[in-house]
Amino acid sequence: MSEMKSEKRKIGEITKEEVSLFADSYELTMAQAHLERDHNIISSFDLSFRDIPSNRGYMLAAGLEDVVKCIESITFEEEAISFLREIGFKQDLCDYLSDFSFTGDLRAVPEGSVVFQSEPIIEITAPIVEAQILETMLINQIGFQSLVATKAARVYDVVQKYGQNQSLIEFGARRAHGIEAGIKASRAAYIGGFEGTSNLAAGAIYGIPVMGTMAHSWMQSYDTEEEAFESFIETYGEDSILLIDTYDTIIGAKKVKSIVQTKGVKIKGVRLDSGDLVSLSKKVKGIIEDLGIYITSGLDEYKIDLFLKEGGVATGFGVGGNLVTSQDSPVAEIVYKLVQTERDGERTPCMKLSEGKQTYPGEKSIRRVIKNGKYQRDILALRGESVDGEEQLVDVYINGELVYDLPELEVIRRRAKDSISALPESCKKIEGQERYRVEISKGIDALIKTLL
Amino acid sequence: MSEMKSEKRKIGEITKEEVSLFADSYELTMAQAHLERDHNIISSFDLSFRDIPSNRGYMLAAGLEDVVKCIESITFEEEAISFLREIGFKQDLCDYLSDFSFTGDLRAVPEGSVVFQSEPIIEITAPIVEAQILETMLINQIGFQSLVATKAARVYDVVQKYGQNQSLIEFGARRAHGIEAGIKASRAAYIGGFEGTSNLAAGAIYGIPVMGTMAHSWMQSYDTEEEAFESFIETYGEDSILLIDTYDTIIGAKKVKSIVQTKGVKIKGVRLDSGDLVSLSKKVKGIIEDLGIYITSGLDEYKIDLFLKEGGVATGFGVGGNLVTSQDSPVAEIVYKLVQTERDGERTPCMKLSEGKQTYPGEKSIRRVIKNGKYQRDILALRGESVDGEEQLVDVYINGELVYDLPELEVIRRRAKDSISALPESCKKIEGQERYRVEISKGIDALIKTLL
Repeated sequence: MSEMKSEKRKIGEITKEEVSLFADSYELTMAQAHLERDHNIISSFDLSFRDIPSNRGYMLAAGLEDVVKCIESITFEEEAISFLREIGFKQDLCDYLSDFSFTGDLRAVPEGSVVFQSEPIIEITAPIVEAQILETMLINQIGFQSLVATKAARVYDVVQKYGQNQSLIEFGARRAHGIEAGIKASRAAYIGGFEGTSNLAAGAIYGIPVMGTMAHSWMQSYDTEEEAFESFIETYGEDSILLIDTYDTIIGAKKVKSIVQTKGVKIKGVRLDSGDLVSLSKKVKGIIEDLGIYITSGLDEYKIDLFLKEGGVATGFGVGGNLVTSQDSPVAEIVYKLVQTERDGERTPCMKLSEGKQTYPGEKSIRRVIKNGKYQRDILALRGESVDGEEQLVDVYINGELVYDLPELEVIRRRAKDSISALPESCKKIEGQERYRVEISKGIDALIKTLL
Repeated sequence: MSEMKSEKRKIGEITKEEVSLFADSYELTMAQAHLERDHNIISSFDLSFRDIPSNRGYMLAAGLEDVVKCIESITFEEEAISFLREIGFKQDLCDYLSDFSFTGDLRAVPEGSVVFQSEPIIEITAPIVEAQILETMLINQIGFQSLVATKAARVYDVVQKYGQNQSLIEFGARRAHGIEAGIKASRAAYIGGFEGTSNLAAGAIYGIPVMGTMAHSWMQSYDTEEEAFESFIETYGEDSILLIDTYDTIIGAKKVKSIVQTKGVKIKGVRLDSGDLVSLSKKVKGIIEDLGIYITSGLDEYKIDLFLKEGGVATGFGVGGNLVTSQDSPVAEIVYKLVQTERDGERTPCMKLSEGKQTYPGEKSIRRVIKNGKYQRDILALRGESVDGEEQLVDVYINGELVYDLPELEVIRRRAKDSISALPESCKKIEGQERYRVEISKGIDALIKTLL
């Protein structure tokens, strides 16, 4: 008997078909016409936040690992090609796609770095058809993951401000926009400073510590609250975190105290999920002072800030839907724009002038001026231009070859912490933050004048 | 040679491993304890919007098809089991999961129906461990897809109000929260009334009409705007939609007019993507009156309403990020709560009293009172209670067997249109909408009094 080899996917893996057809049809409409017109010219595209959201002082870059995985796995299989033929694409395009692979250069800001308005998180130089086929996937993966990583960093930073060292657990799987979103949001939250997730799949894929307590259904499934608490403690002993708000939080806390005293067990703590959390947490602390108090219920950086400002007592926070959807800024203003074309070896920088949506021309360099470990300002410059500061873009692909070692998640997370601590305090405020200074280099300025 | 059989996934398909491990760890923590304590009692859970968002007058239910696909495919493979063992789950739970399949009942509101606060979109009756293992996936799929379908319906409804019959194309793939989100958002938008998508994958999976124009990069890749327009027309002829805002919208429109006249071709139209869209669209109409005008650029129901109110001229709208993220309400307040337990054949309704998060006890019935084809009010009743109105819940699973024929997408879309047109106008306003009346039945009222 011959060996049966199954092509079983790992969880979270992206299929070739998903990546290849996850494109806006205009990418292929343009591809077809470019090929037909022999106009598959070398082009450079910038992927950048046109602007960072008005309620953010910085963006934490995330998603590059998935971009690389997508580029590595993109293949137009027969099923995809048939579909394209069916909806009217021509044989020449189909033949081209059957052989598709990325042959260009890709430079990127490493995951866990901070970026600002107009700075290319990714810059691709490749035949225009290749560069365009990747567009939708690039914007999708980098935009969403950067939004969640940034939101997580804001939550993390607020907690640091009060110096009480609460643990931060991401609880958002159920409120994320799909299974993939839930899994990748856990990773992004971990990058941004969270220390665990409730999401088992994210634990399995990324090795993020998995944490969990109990739901209200546990409490309700027993005739009395006491019985529910006791049953859980019998199974989990000192790991138990008991949810005390199912009927009345204060009465729940008193019951826990009495059970803990009677049984002589030490448990981990209690969870509060409703009501006036500040006042309840203080009262609960008065009742069971040596136990942890875990707070959940629609939290985000604003609510945690207020909670701590008002003297709420917490050992840890569970943050869910507002984090994984970047609730106050769920749409990334992230764009992918042509900045240069090359014909017969001659490079022509280009820009669009659309009202409120202008772009900066030319292949870029992001230079960060750092003094005593603190970020002073960035200079958006032309590639190769002689300007101050440390280059932020690294080579990821050269001539279609992957030349970048994808870093471990812990390395990315550490980079995020370091980056955020190097930011000016004024950018890190959760409201009324100041804009970080991004200067446009003389080279770009001169180029714009020439092009206009 | 023996046949090699590959287990290749279709695009958009969910893997067994993804579904099984896409769960919050507390589901398994509780499962383990329930099993250990021989407490795997029959339980009923309601999946409902605790409240519909304050900026929505109704919710359009979507996602049931994916829930069924997930339930059908859920299997804990050895890889998943190993991971669970590794992070400390016990052998008894692992053995149970290895054999897992859903054996319970599931009733649901069909996709494309409208639902309101506290109404169970899904009600499950099953051994508590089974019911809990599905929790995260259920909330995730129904919540996200219903948010997008609802947002789409609001956009659709605004366009209907002005009676100009503009086409609505969903352009959101790039701004959705991941690839799965982009694909499923296209389906949800189609259910809510959109007529096409730019997303090729959604076209391939669901047969949704795929549409696309050109990007700014096309325009920029040619030396002159004229050359770019002419080249596109040479390839696409009368299907061409030309993007005219790359440099100056009015000049762009004049160039298009001149090319169209000189060449004697009729094209489909032009696209505007920036600037003051109302004023520009009117001016463009004055220049090229017999061509279509397609409007894009951060649109949503509010902006389209304003655009049409102010006399903007459009043949169609492309709506993206704000739609697919449900930008003004990206987090669904959707919950999954225990409403009844059963032991030794005796059913015990239950409720939680947590402040602001109370639940209604017992297995439910949603009755909709309809007069002359218009929805008057709903009555949330106990299952089997004698009350007015048409039952909204249908059987999907009975004793683990799928008894529901998943309807075609067109049927769901038609149901959505009919449901929305049957709603009171006051619920459909995009701002300042009134709440639809959901009465609590005498049966539930009496039950609450008894339980308190």
